[in-house]
Amino acid sequence: MSVEQLVHEMCLAARQAARQLATAPSGQKNQALRAMAAALRQEAPGLKEANAQDLEGARQAGLSAAMIDRLTLSDAVIESMAAGLEEVAALPDPVGEITSMWRRPNGLLVGRQRIPLGVIGFIYESRPNVTVDAAGLCLKSGNAVVLKGGKEALESNLALARVVAQALEAAGLPPAAVQVIPTTDRAATSALLKEDELVDVIIPRGGEGLIRFVAENSAIPVLKHYKGVCHVFVDASADQDMALEICLNAKCQRPGVCNAMETLLVHQDLAPQFLPRVAQALMEKGVEIRGCPQTCRLVPQAKPAVEEDWPAEFLDLILAVKVVEGMDQALDHIDRYGSRHTEAIVTSDYTRAKHFLDRVDSSVVLVNASTRFNDGGQLGLGAEIGINTSKLHAFGPMGLAELTSQKFVVQGEGQVRS
Amino acid sequence: MSVEQLVHEMCLAARQAARQLATAPSGQKNQALRAMAAALRQEAPGLKEANAQDLEGARQAGLSAAMIDRLTLSDAVIESMAAGLEEVAALPDPVGEITSMWRRPNGLLVGRQRIPLGVIGFIYESRPNVTVDAAGLCLKSGNAVVLKGGKEALESNLALARVVAQALEAAGLPPAAVQVIPTTDRAATSALLKEDELVDVIIPRGGEGLIRFVAENSAIPVLKHYKGVCHVFVDASADQDMALEICLNAKCQRPGVCNAMETLLVHQDLAPQFLPRVAQALMEKGVEIRGCPQTCRLVPQAKPAVEEDWPAEFLDLILAVKVVEGMDQALDHIDRYGSRHTEAIVTSDYTRAKHFLDRVDSSVVLVNASTRFNDGGQLGLGAEIGINTSKLHAFGPMGLAELTSQKFVVQGEGQVRS
Repeated sequence: MSVEQLVHEMCLAARQAARQLATAPSGQKNQALRAMAAALRQEAPGLKEANAQDLEGARQAGLSAAMIDRLTLSDAVIESMAAGLEEVAALPDPVGEITSMWRRPNGLLVGRQRIPLGVIGFIYESRPNVTVDAAGLCLKSGNAVVLKGGKEALESNLALARVVAQALEAAGLPPAAVQVIPTTDRAATSALLKEDELVDVIIPRGGEGLIRFVAENSAIPVLKHYKGVCHVFVDASADQDMALEICLNAKCQRPGVCNAMETLLVHQDLAPQFLPRVAQALMEKGVEIRGCPQTCRLVPQAKPAVEEDWPAEFLDLILAVKVVEGMDQALDHIDRYGSRHTEAIVTSDYTRAKHFLDRVDSSVVLVNASTRFNDGGQLGLGAEIGINTSKLHAFGPMGLAELTSQKFVVQGEGQVRS
Repeated sequence: MSVEQLVHEMCLAARQAARQLATAPSGQKNQALRAMAAALRQEAPGLKEANAQDLEGARQAGLSAAMIDRLTLSDAVIESMAAGLEEVAALPDPVGEITSMWRRPNGLLVGRQRIPLGVIGFIYESRPNVTVDAAGLCLKSGNAVVLKGGKEALESNLALARVVAQALEAAGLPPAAVQVIPTTDRAATSALLKEDELVDVIIPRGGEGLIRFVAENSAIPVLKHYKGVCHVFVDASADQDMALEICLNAKCQRPGVCNAMETLLVHQDLAPQFLPRVAQALMEKGVEIRGCPQTCRLVPQAKPAVEEDWPAEFLDLILAVKVVEGMDQALDHIDRYGSRHTEAIVTSDYTRAKHFLDRVDSSVVLVNASTRFNDGGQLGLGAEIGINTSKLHAFGPMGLAELTSQKFVVQGEGQVRS
């Protein structure tokens, strides 16, 4: 069978499974999720064996230590996957929820009811834990999922898929609800992106290169974000201690993630006092400062920023810093260089807080809080399948509800249209 | 300037306008809408003159009477466009609405706030009234719109665009908020579909051919429906008088539209009584019946249906009719041949009504009401820009709220992530 045929058969099976999943009771889905968790724990030795093959291949291929770390299925990672599934089982089921209902003048009762999207194509890099996370969220929201992971993780992913399929069957659900494409051939990704009759949405997760490839080659709608160039604007009226804590947290708590701060904007009135202080604290944590000319005057250790630093997603202990004349210049800078991901203002001024919240065109806009809160779990969505920085369907972190659509349900007593 | 450059310049201007529109107060947008309505009435003679040129061309090109009818800007059509704008002005502004808000355990207040999508590309056939309808809905929802109408309507559309632009300027809004692409060159459509950096969503309206062309050539997400193959299932327990009224309304009230019934499914227990009666009433209204073998036995005047009749969108006084063994066969038929648009059940049985509502995977599912109610106005959305039969972003009729997205707004007091 060709790769295209293989992928097509899998998508057909997923479509069939999706029909059954769409009306599966919550109890049955939760039972499957808990069975998956139990099976992962039980099958840990076999999973680690499969993972060892991947790790051996990765070492021979000379993968970086960071990549090998992400690829590794340790006991802790397996336990964390299992616990994650149990957490998803405990979340409310979005499917079937009537989100609103109203009566029309002619007596018709009109409601909107949540339904699954159908079949989700999930494309990601070599992180086997993502296989299980995505499977759990898709299953809970009544969607079938076809998973295409990175080539270095194939053996691990196939072993995980076997465990998941058994748990699905044991719970009376179709094993085709969660399928891993069993090949490292990149043609499988292209084939999946062409199945627009069978797949409802593609969610890619990984580096910008992978996501661009998916976006440019997909005949299916894609929910994606390319990068997070997140800004913190410290306003003139900011509480300086609060601003310092937020800046340190936003930059240093986990610098390699998309919701870390990449550019700090400081109001010129506060800059002479605040900038030396925050720069000192950041540098003590190992952060390299790349500043505008004014910043460099106030912070002699700063390197001069070049144009490429302003739209950069460093994902590292590097921070671009700019002194701005005021709110308008801060908003213009964000508009020009930002990625519509996450921006925060630190201010004591109510009107300016409100102005910033209204004007900034990003998926998450915060007042007096760290950018690191752009996360489905942190914002209260329960869990997160990804972040979308295009505005269609969902903007920002996507939880279970964002893996659903809504249909209109209409109850009448014989109404006709005149 | 090439067509591609022209379209690119227009999209750039639209993006600029969108930024201004995103935070324009409701009062200003409503003022512009009312100014547009007044200007349409005042400029009616000039509009009809421009329209006369289009009509002359259309007659020379030998367009059908139906197409010429849709192309015509009569006084009644102009008044109806103006009144439509005033109705949109009277609707609540979706932008800025906080749809929900909750507090996190750490004290963060998290809300979701409606924001415009940004720039909408609207592609449609030669119906100049759609130019104004789309402009009004996009403006009210804070979006800029780039309009590409059918070539036969170019002079009318350009005249309408001039009137609209003047009203926008008078209200202090950027005239680039509503732009008509001033060429009949089809390359302009292709160029628009490539502007994925500047255009957020494409909405095509027209025949299946146009919509397929757009869907297949767009680098931008498309909200669309190809066709409406709508079913009415008359269950064994149906009130026969009610079923008769609903069938007549769904098929005959306006047979040429996408929410008209195209296939009637009748439960076998009711068929011997009900089918001859409903067929008689339909035939009296000029409907041609194409039936399954059992239907043809019960209704001697029926023609035998062929396989192509089941997935057909007749858009005419033609009806496919099938006798089904029960609910499961009705659901299977809808699943196989339906278009996920609109389906209705007529039944007196509560459990079966609920089963149908839950199982049918269509944008609007009705109990004891006509399929003709799948319409934004009829369902209470206020107005409608189109219908979407894919599940992403919006499923079913799209009103003002469906022309928006939501961002997260987060209010803290210095929270950082631990």
